Amino acid sequence: MSGELFSEERSAEVVAASFAGTPDPRLRQVMTSLVRHLHAFVKDVELTEEEWAVAVDFLTRTGHTSTGVRQEFILLSDVLGVSMLVETINHRSGGTSTESTVLGPFHVVESPPRQLGDDIALDGKGTPCLVSGRVTGPDGEPLAGATVDVWQTNEDGFYDVQQPDVQPPGNLRGLFTADGDGRFWFRSVVPRYYPIPDDGPVGRLLAATGRHPNRPAHLHLIVAAPGYRPVTTHVFVADSPYLDSDAVFGVKESLVREVPEVDDPARAAEVGLANPFRTLTFDPILLRA
Amino acid sequence: MSGELFSEERSAEVVAASFAGTPDPRLRQVMTSLVRHLHAFVKDVELTEEEWAVAVDFLTRTGHTSTGVRQEFILLSDVLGVSMLVETINHRSGGTSTESTVLGPFHVVESPPRQLGDDIALDGKGTPCLVSGRVTGPDGEPLAGATVDVWQTNEDGFYDVQQPDVQPPGNLRGLFTADGDGRFWFRSVVPRYYPIPDDGPVGRLLAATGRHPNRPAHLHLIVAAPGYRPVTTHVFVADSPYLDSDAVFGVKESLVREVPEVDDPARAAEVGLANPFRTLTFDPILLRA
Ligand SMILES: [Fe+2]
Ligand SMILES: [Fe+2]
Repeated sequence: MSGELFSEERSAEVVAASFAGTPDPRLRQVMTSLVRHLHAFVKDVELTEEEWAVAVDFLTRTGHTSTGVRQEFILLSDVLGVSMLVETINHRSGGTSTESTVLGPFHVVESPPRQLGDDIALDGKGTPCLVSGRVTGPDGEPLAGATVDVWQTNEDGFYDVQQPDVQPPGNLRGLFTADGDGRFWFRSVVPRYYPIPDDGPVGRLLAATGRHPNRPAHLHLIVAAPGYRPVTTHVFVADSPYLDSDAVFGVKESLVREVPEVDDPARAAEVGLANPFRTLTFDPILLRA
Repeated sequence: MSGELFSEERSAEVVAASFAGTPDPRLRQVMTSLVRHLHAFVKDVELTEEEWAVAVDFLTRTGHTSTGVRQEFILLSDVLGVSMLVETINHRSGGTSTESTVLGPFHVVESPPRQLGDDIALDGKGTPCLVSGRVTGPDGEPLAGATVDVWQTNEDGFYDVQQPDVQPPGNLRGLFTADGDGRFWFRSVVPRYYPIPDDGPVGRLLAATGRHPNRPAHLHLIVAAPGYRPVTTHVFVADSPYLDSDAVFGVKESLVREVPEVDDPARAAEVGLANPFRTLTFDPILLRA
């Protein structure tokens, strides 16, 4: 550490200089930048001592709320848009491939392998929906054998792991393998919007700032193929509430799809769904690895 | 919340807009600024997903380390210079009064009231030191009856509360009342530098960044008088190690004092200290309330 003493004017420089001897250059870069932005924030708002104490208490409660089964700091990162920003920075699509969005906390069990055409709505509830698409590379080449890992809420807005006494295990989850032409299809129901856990410090922050805790209806996907970069994303239901105010900022324009109704008894019989049914079509495009 | 969807370029604006409906205008201002600076940091360093996960884990461990008797988030704020910045912003001295510095975590018990001239080194260890000064207002007016609350380490670098089995309770603490001329004086020993608690996540951060955990030797003071703004500060010992690298950035030039030796048996007998002894002189100046 150098000898410059602390002053309000030079606080960021003085503290940043204390990290000048960090052996790892990347850690040095991150800490230096963190200090500069953190001090700029404190100076910008002229944080009071009472507000500082509230912040310390908030962070402490957020830590205490984080247990083996719940991560309140990830939730905090989510509602501040940081998770989405990190995801986006690290998976730039280049405008030619499917955009990514947050993984979310509900991919907690391995999706059960399923056959193309299977119905993942094991509880038989909800509005029937045929989900289909084709996985390709950036030049439109079909990715035969690509894997499509999906999970979603039921019509009540809950994942199976949230309702172990109500939903059968593996309900509304599936790991599919695309056919020789990169195509996949399966039967499901239309997902519903749902709230993130809002009974902790982050929920209280949302309430205090007039924000709701809801995420618009979506289907989660992780699409992967050998030699290509996997993508973790969602498809959002175009007519869902909260589409323009996702509590975790996951919505990107390119990921929103209409879910039109098909009223065609012959087609319904063909795919094995009750008539009428909805259809969700999404064609993932992967970048080369 | 407005309808603009997330994008890397506009992430800060989109997330800040989500706080536009915050009922309390100050909370709205703070959250908006926090979001802008936080996103600027993430973009500046292009934080990776692995680094984000390390940060989540670090914050979680910092929360779990914070208990009723230890506050690791305050320690984190301290080593990032945030505590010192908040203290300084909220107690600007105007250049005419005594500068403030951090309170620190060791003012955990009320200082025992003492008489002027008392010896606060109850354990009789260390290098004898006569501490004296005069409390005035900004125009030099003496503040009769001002209170001077002091606490410091012993010569081994520990506060009494850190060594309940070794030091007598109230060792090296005292609450003094200045005389009619604003003067105070008492007997003590020269304090020693000491490390902040470094066995938790913050200590590991310091180690990883090549920083030591030490604070230079100092005497804590809270000086108060009716009708004036109290000041929470330290006096630092000029020849202490770490004076130019305080782990919590508490040192200000105006707070550093030489502690010269006096070799004068008559004077030593007069003040009740062994000869030779050191002297620490500090004249607090308070602003009007
Ligand atoms: Fe989800
Ligand atoms: Fe101290």
